[in-house]
Amino acid sequence: MKHISIFDSTLRDGAQAEGVSFSVNDKLNICRALDDFGVDYIEAGNPSSNPKDAEFFRTAALSLSLKNAKLCAFGSTHRKGVPPEKDASLQSLLFSGTPAVSLVGKTWDLQVTEVLGITLEENVGLVASSISYLVSQGREVVFDAEHFFDGWMSNRDYALRVLRAAFDAGASFLTLCDTNGGTLPFDIYMATKDAASLLPDAAIAIHCHNDTGCAVANSISGVFGGASQVQGTFIGIGERCGNADLSVIIPNLVLKSAYKCGGNLSELFDTARRIAEIANVPLENNRPYVGKSAFAHKGGMHIDGVLKNPATFEHIDPELVGNKRRFLTSEVSGRSAIPAKLRRVAPGLTRSSPETAKILAALKESERQGYFYEAAEASLELMVMKILGTFKPHFRLVFYKTMGEFPVATGELPAFASIKIEVGGRTEVTAETGMGPVNALDLALRKALTVFYPDIADMQLIDYKVRVLEQNCSTDARVRVLMESGDGSDTWNTIGVSNDILEASLLALVDSIEYKLAKIDRTLNI
Amino acid sequence: MKHISIFDSTLRDGAQAEGVSFSVNDKLNICRALDDFGVDYIEAGNPSSNPKDAEFFRTAALSLSLKNAKLCAFGSTHRKGVPPEKDASLQSLLFSGTPAVSLVGKTWDLQVTEVLGITLEENVGLVASSISYLVSQGREVVFDAEHFFDGWMSNRDYALRVLRAAFDAGASFLTLCDTNGGTLPFDIYMATKDAASLLPDAAIAIHCHNDTGCAVANSISGVFGGASQVQGTFIGIGERCGNADLSVIIPNLVLKSAYKCGGNLSELFDTARRIAEIANVPLENNRPYVGKSAFAHKGGMHIDGVLKNPATFEHIDPELVGNKRRFLTSEVSGRSAIPAKLRRVAPGLTRSSPETAKILAALKESERQGYFYEAAEASLELMVMKILGTFKPHFRLVFYKTMGEFPVATGELPAFASIKIEVGGRTEVTAETGMGPVNALDLALRKALTVFYPDIADMQLIDYKVRVLEQNCSTDARVRVLMESGDGSDTWNTIGVSNDILEASLLALVDSIEYKLAKIDRTLNI
Repeated sequence: MKHISIFDSTLRDGAQAEGVSFSVNDKLNICRALDDFGVDYIEAGNPSSNPKDAEFFRTAALSLSLKNAKLCAFGSTHRKGVPPEKDASLQSLLFSGTPAVSLVGKTWDLQVTEVLGITLEENVGLVASSISYLVSQGREVVFDAEHFFDGWMSNRDYALRVLRAAFDAGASFLTLCDTNGGTLPFDIYMATKDAASLLPDAAIAIHCHNDTGCAVANSISGVFGGASQVQGTFIGIGERCGNADLSVIIPNLVLKSAYKCGGNLSELFDTARRIAEIANVPLENNRPYVGKSAFAHKGGMHIDGVLKNPATFEHIDPELVGNKRRFLTSEVSGRSAIPAKLRRVAPGLTRSSPETAKILAALKESERQGYFYEAAEASLELMVMKILGTFKPHFRLVFYKTMGEFPVATGELPAFASIKIEVGGRTEVTAETGMGPVNALDLALRKALTVFYPDIADMQLIDYKVRVLEQNCSTDARVRVLMESGDGSDTWNTIGVSNDILEASLLALVDSIEYKLAKIDRTLNI
Repeated sequence: MKHISIFDSTLRDGAQAEGVSFSVNDKLNICRALDDFGVDYIEAGNPSSNPKDAEFFRTAALSLSLKNAKLCAFGSTHRKGVPPEKDASLQSLLFSGTPAVSLVGKTWDLQVTEVLGITLEENVGLVASSISYLVSQGREVVFDAEHFFDGWMSNRDYALRVLRAAFDAGASFLTLCDTNGGTLPFDIYMATKDAASLLPDAAIAIHCHNDTGCAVANSISGVFGGASQVQGTFIGIGERCGNADLSVIIPNLVLKSAYKCGGNLSELFDTARRIAEIANVPLENNRPYVGKSAFAHKGGMHIDGVLKNPATFEHIDPELVGNKRRFLTSEVSGRSAIPAKLRRVAPGLTRSSPETAKILAALKESERQGYFYEAAEASLELMVMKILGTFKPHFRLVFYKTMGEFPVATGELPAFASIKIEVGGRTEVTAETGMGPVNALDLALRKALTVFYPDIADMQLIDYKVRVLEQNCSTDARVRVLMESGDGSDTWNTIGVSNDILEASLLALVDSIEYKLAKIDRTLNI
């Protein structure tokens, strides 16, 4: 079986998508998600065009260690008249310190003469000298043949000549890009086959966009035509209509076409969700393989057929990609779905325990309200402990009041919170100011608790995310708050949902502190 | 040029989608939208399985007159042992009174023996007698060969034998259905070609689902293999991962493959929106051809290229499908986008105007702080007017105070906001309660403003999104609020960024109201 290498560009091409904007920290977290899944290359930014990407590569060099993937910086060929060792773009690629770089160059004659405004000959020279230089500096160079398919239609010999020059200069992959996304599968197949036949020793990659709704089919046609690498973005994020969606291409190749890819296919569903959460984009229910509806059956005849033999109405076993079957019109529910993760808090639980049914019912009701426990396992554990009667609250919130105001007096903060808590019959009243009401409430609650539990001083809020759930209801929509907390040795995630952002934040915060206090109890063997 | 007939099943197969439910009136309106566009067949329901569909056909017979499309009712072959003239399914098809009917039958041996539980021979007989009967009653019969591709792989001779029986019985189209949606384009092509060669006088139709993300490519592969009809749903609505999306297939065929289809291509964008509105489903921005982002350019190099020659980064002219080009402004785009975008507020601006440089600098600084103007064009316009000195504020916020509390008294809301504004020397003080401080502040501000500007009463908040920007800074991170507002005739987007969620929300809200007031001024010619 031929191995197909997977190259993810969520952080570079994906960052071009309308509505998408990654922080440096988002980028680091997406790298970890992609690496955990097992992609081969992560193209993570364009250091010469974007100061945020340059900062990312500095941070990554210090703090990111990858198990599977090679990190890759993206840039253009050097400019005419500027030698490679003085060219800002090539130098910023080297400065990024990544083992691989992807280098984009023109292969469509129209682009060379109309956009770059140089001769066809000069362009071939720029491609060759840029690659040779980067290779001489110890980098692996993936060459992105921009607009290859348009070039191949317009002037086949020239497009192929640029490819050959890149190969001769030492590029590890020649990437055939359908930059405008307008090509259909049969043309992709023909052109890829032509390039692969002409350069039998080269490794070909295929890079497609979804402007004709064919990015997945085009990528597969490229592989059938001889490509050994597929470039795309894990959940298809990208400029205009998106990039080729790797979460669809990988299972199509592995489950349906007898190719091998790196990556743990059973983590496909979870990885897609993890990336969507970090990128803060919705993952539509009807997505192939990873959508919630992908294996949902509504028609009675379909449900009947699936119960007789799943192959009658399912093209694959959903568990192969970490997804699951759902019946929309029946009450049949996956009781076995109570996650193995609960073993720590409830070791005796089996599929048929009455508590399992109770937990399942509570989980369903919470998720209906907008909870999303996959992203908040600490809150899930606490919820289960409450149902099992093993939860011991460490404090009780008696009241809080917050105030916010505008304009803000010079040197003052805009918000103020006062709070009263009770611990074992003793109360504590205190207050704090903050940048906003949530921040003030957070600070006041920890200040009050430290009186009773000095050990929580090492606890920190690492991440705080807000998401509005029903986006058609304006400012009284439900709000979901996800928090990540840590204490140096450990991190955990909690969740709160409410119509009131303060209450949602507080629910997540209280869970986070209770989780930490339960952890201290376990250490002290209380 | 070969003519490809278009068969829409939004109202039958689309109705199987999770979350979709059509009223009789919705169905009538979708028929009108499809007919106005110019599809050839509208499959509008399954009268024997669904009383609502039976009611629809009664109403349609009385009140629906179609200019272009043939209405079509859907049902199954008659049951073993029940003669056609007594079979409930066939009789309800006749009773629907549609000129065409689509009749589904099995072609996969596994389905015949495992699901129907009859012999292969018996199944061929049921298909033939059902079709002959309906044809004898003056109906055009489109035969749906369910699971044809699975059948062709499992037992090719049998699948083809069922097709031949349907053809001999008088079916107008033999529809090859990829019912489970698991087939890839090359297999679709091969199997369709095989069927078309065996039955050179038959008209073949192709019916695909999107479970491998290839429904569009599969439909086109079917046409390349010899099909002369494509079945799908106009915006891809359908069970699991959806049906083949006609709004993508039609332009792919007409603009890229030298086929002819009925329908007015320049109405594609509006028709897709009309159907999405009636079906109450979101039309994602990144959809090929009809998405708002389909011809949006963000990268500076792309914008520059498109301005030099649209073909450099656009696969078709967006106006061919009724869509339009957009330039997004962001940290990755250069100076070219500014004048193209701001023509309305600053008609005299060119690339080299000193104001352009000032706007660009302000834009970069704002985006560094976390603003994201590509999602908030109304705020961008106001910002530019402020720089150009053409902005006239309509009110001034003097102060606000918000309060939030826990626990909440029974029947009360958890938050409270008081506000003072000034308009032309007059002030108004008021207050409101709300679900949270942001909601209370929103309500109080509009209440105060309505005193001076009663026309803002038709303004509504449509969407409210919150995003925390630097996720390592816990609850004092910067918050970005995006708002979408509307007034029935128009919608607009604004943005606010602050460390304080209240202030960020207020900035977006103030921009939204100022934009609406400026719009009223323009109408009144002030």
